[in-house]
Amino acid sequence: MMSSGMNVNTQQETLFVIKIGGNVIDNETALAAFLKDFAAVNAPKILVHGGGKIATKIGEQLGIESKYINGRRITDDNTIDVVTMVYGGLVNKKIVAQLQALRTNAIGLTGADANIIPATKRPVKIINDSPVDFGWVGDIDVQQLQADNLKHLLEKGFTPVFAPLTHDEQGHILNTNADTIASAIAVSLSQFYKVRLIYCFEKKGVLEDVNDDNSVIRNINKEKYQQLLNENKLFEGILPKIDNAFAAIDAGVSEVLIGDAKDLIKNTTTSTEGTLITQ
Amino acid sequence: MMSSGMNVNTQQETLFVIKIGGNVIDNETALAAFLKDFAAVNAPKILVHGGGKIATKIGEQLGIESKYINGRRITDDNTIDVVTMVYGGLVNKKIVAQLQALRTNAIGLTGADANIIPATKRPVKIINDSPVDFGWVGDIDVQQLQADNLKHLLEKGFTPVFAPLTHDEQGHILNTNADTIASAIAVSLSQFYKVRLIYCFEKKGVLEDVNDDNSVIRNINKEKYQQLLNENKLFEGILPKIDNAFAAIDAGVSEVLIGDAKDLIKNTTTSTEGTLITQ
Repeated sequence: MMSSGMNVNTQQETLFVIKIGGNVIDNETALAAFLKDFAAVNAPKILVHGGGKIATKIGEQLGIESKYINGRRITDDNTIDVVTMVYGGLVNKKIVAQLQALRTNAIGLTGADANIIPATKRPVKIINDSPVDFGWVGDIDVQQLQADNLKHLLEKGFTPVFAPLTHDEQGHILNTNADTIASAIAVSLSQFYKVRLIYCFEKKGVLEDVNDDNSVIRNINKEKYQQLLNENKLFEGILPKIDNAFAAIDAGVSEVLIGDAKDLIKNTTTSTEGTLITQ
Repeated sequence: MMSSGMNVNTQQETLFVIKIGGNVIDNETALAAFLKDFAAVNAPKILVHGGGKIATKIGEQLGIESKYINGRRITDDNTIDVVTMVYGGLVNKKIVAQLQALRTNAIGLTGADANIIPATKRPVKIINDSPVDFGWVGDIDVQQLQADNLKHLLEKGFTPVFAPLTHDEQGHILNTNADTIASAIAVSLSQFYKVRLIYCFEKKGVLEDVNDDNSVIRNINKEKYQQLLNENKLFEGILPKIDNAFAAIDAGVSEVLIGDAKDLIKNTTTSTEGTLITQ
């Protein structure tokens, strides 16, 4: 068995930070099945959920058009209200109510609640020689997270469920990518726990052959990653996910797992189905 | 000075449970002024907010018609989704973000979060010889409240902010009157705190002359109430509010104050502007 060189305290309790995306959120049956598995994970755990297509649908019904500049989506005043309603209200509270029915004591949060995730409104950027104001989008500085407040909630037996929203400490809710929130929480809590960060996506893991679901690469460390890159074995879409995983690991997270939402139970044990990424 | 006969432990810390209604929620300037005062209250405190007209407006924009049977509003599937979005998401998180900017460590909750307010879906009632199903409306049994969980949050320095939503412990969010939620929380926490329950409404207090804002009756106890009733001095609309206040007091709440949102600061001191109701 390999041991992580970074993990100085082997006595630490394991915490699972689990991110599910829009594909699960949008499918009522898949979501119910996932939440049943999530409730069965018998360890401290945090859920971070994406938004799904429902925000776009409700925005359209309200006559709010999605705005893009240079292909980048802009979060204007109307859009932040819609995502605050849909992510922070509808999606988050439905998940909380369903977890309560499964006897998991969920508490739904945005980054504004208990000031857990302060963020900074993204500054205007020059893209293709034009200034782009992304609107109410929040960038996180992991050092600013109020990890103590989150730890208190975990210690009281609550299971935090995060919507992909933060705040600017000046009274505004900000839109923040759910993968980024999951990673920031995982990094921040790695000072107290041995953290496994799990990204649920639409494949069983990182595949050696994109067209073969049985070609999951079970373990990737930095050496193996370099080897796979040299052999040109990875499809391009997966590279940012692996790079982000190593960034989280370099910042203190013990393990990052990329796998299918349907494999959650196995992926919270030592015999994982997905791709386990370690130092 | 009168002392309450119910209040056996005079050492208990004072907790303020403060309810604001739709008239404040709907007015951005009034809400900002109120939150500034609320943030300045230097004691453990809980805010319970109503919904305001924005849920109806957004419901209409989404093409969802309010349904009424025998003059009673029905919370159907579409309506519960709208109020979950608007009360639990938009209104609640905007208040939380604004309180954070005022350095009050707010945490936004529904009754589903941390299982604080389990409720029961209102049973079908026979009204005018017809069965009426109110839909996703929750009735609270105060004994079921998880007051310990709420106390933990207060003790960690968080300021809970409640949307008027509960849950049925079977996976469904329920619509519950904000006055009822405020009262249930006040009663439930009176086992740990000396509770003053404050209802902010559109008058300065209970008026002896409805047309004279300076005719506030400063103190009402049961004896005084009977006297006012005998003298036919109270307008009918205020009677249910006073009856509810005495019900809360009989269940353990020390004081109920009915007053103007603009007088919040004074109404959290001993020299109150509104009507203070005691045993």
